[in-house]
Amino acid sequence: MKKIAVVLSGSGYLDGTEITEAVSFLIALGQAGAQVRCFAPDMDAPAVDHVAKKPLAGETRNVLREAARIARSEISELRELRAADFDAVVFPGGFGAAKNLCDWAQKGAQSSVHPEIERVIREFHGASKPIGAACIAPVLLAKVLGKKRVALTIGDDAATAGEIKKTGAHHEDCPVDDYVTDRENKVITTPAYMYEAKPHEVFQGISGLVKELVEMA
Amino acid sequence: MKKIAVVLSGSGYLDGTEITEAVSFLIALGQAGAQVRCFAPDMDAPAVDHVAKKPLAGETRNVLREAARIARSEISELRELRAADFDAVVFPGGFGAAKNLCDWAQKGAQSSVHPEIERVIREFHGASKPIGAACIAPVLLAKVLGKKRVALTIGDDAATAGEIKKTGAHHEDCPVDDYVTDRENKVITTPAYMYEAKPHEVFQGISGLVKELVEMA
Repeated sequence: MKKIAVVLSGSGYLDGTEITEAVSFLIALGQAGAQVRCFAPDMDAPAVDHVAKKPLAGETRNVLREAARIARSEISELRELRAADFDAVVFPGGFGAAKNLCDWAQKGAQSSVHPEIERVIREFHGASKPIGAACIAPVLLAKVLGKKRVALTIGDDAATAGEIKKTGAHHEDCPVDDYVTDRENKVITTPAYMYEAKPHEVFQGISGLVKELVEMA
Repeated sequence: MKKIAVVLSGSGYLDGTEITEAVSFLIALGQAGAQVRCFAPDMDAPAVDHVAKKPLAGETRNVLREAARIARSEISELRELRAADFDAVVFPGGFGAAKNLCDWAQKGAQSSVHPEIERVIREFHGASKPIGAACIAPVLLAKVLGKKRVALTIGDDAATAGEIKKTGAHHEDCPVDDYVTDRENKVITTPAYMYEAKPHEVFQGISGLVKELVEMA
């Protein structure tokens, strides 16, 4: 049974992990016969009102505690994640990936990646273990593995693709129900909610990614 | 295209909607070709720390605003939900269903149902439109439709099944990947996380429910 780590960044697409993407990974990983453990960084982040789509004045929430809502409390601190203990790692998207796991949302190609995220990506890549990412989360891989000429997708958004190219990474356009595989770097990515998509379309793209990832792991 | 209403009660299994159940409904409804709209009551409820599994001291959150995290902001107030506008309605579970939509968690068969939830259930039942519910949410149907001898499942938990029988409803044991249909009352239920289940098992049970519900609608 393959062991797969899922890295979350909160719970809710505007300030954390995109919920449908995370659950799509969890369902597809179970269908593929994998064993799953969730992780998130123990840090505070500004909360966003998901009705008004505006900051919840003055309110911050703990990323690990909120991510535990998706993981049904079965979650560990990100610093406990070791590539040696798993066969692969995946990163669902949502603004949490671009605001909590790095500051791409503010700085694009000039952003810094959370040190523990950078460590995790380097560990899995160094051990030649597959890495999957959805939505905006592939920018984490571009930032850390750009110099390895990693190939990935965030859909067809030209502005974001342009920023990604500045890291050295190669961007390929891809529809929501498909995914892009970089066999050399063992990186698999799917655009998910980078499109205005339906939940079952997002699930289809992530299911394809997961099947390929678990086979490769 | 069938129009289905999804009633949420927050976001997170300990104080709101069980997230994997809600997303399973959204994916399965899309796969079944249905059009979906989410609803939740505009009310405050105590927040629970999903790592410690204890109350977040003194903190309440707005149920509608939190549910919007699952619905990607595409959500309306529960009082706007009219059976005349939809072909069916579904209720995912989580403690939100038993604490925010009624007080079953505290009072069992003696609980009161949120007046808008009672209205919605009576409207859909009165119009002979199907109603689906997962996990603990079938207790809402037991409370409102118990006197109609509604048949439903919450899995195989004898204590909860015993409370349900006090309402007049009929309880049938059911495994996580299956569902129970009451053709006369057009009520379909599945146990989901009433078991210690895996996300893909919960998805299987809810997918079966949704196929039957959309066909019946």
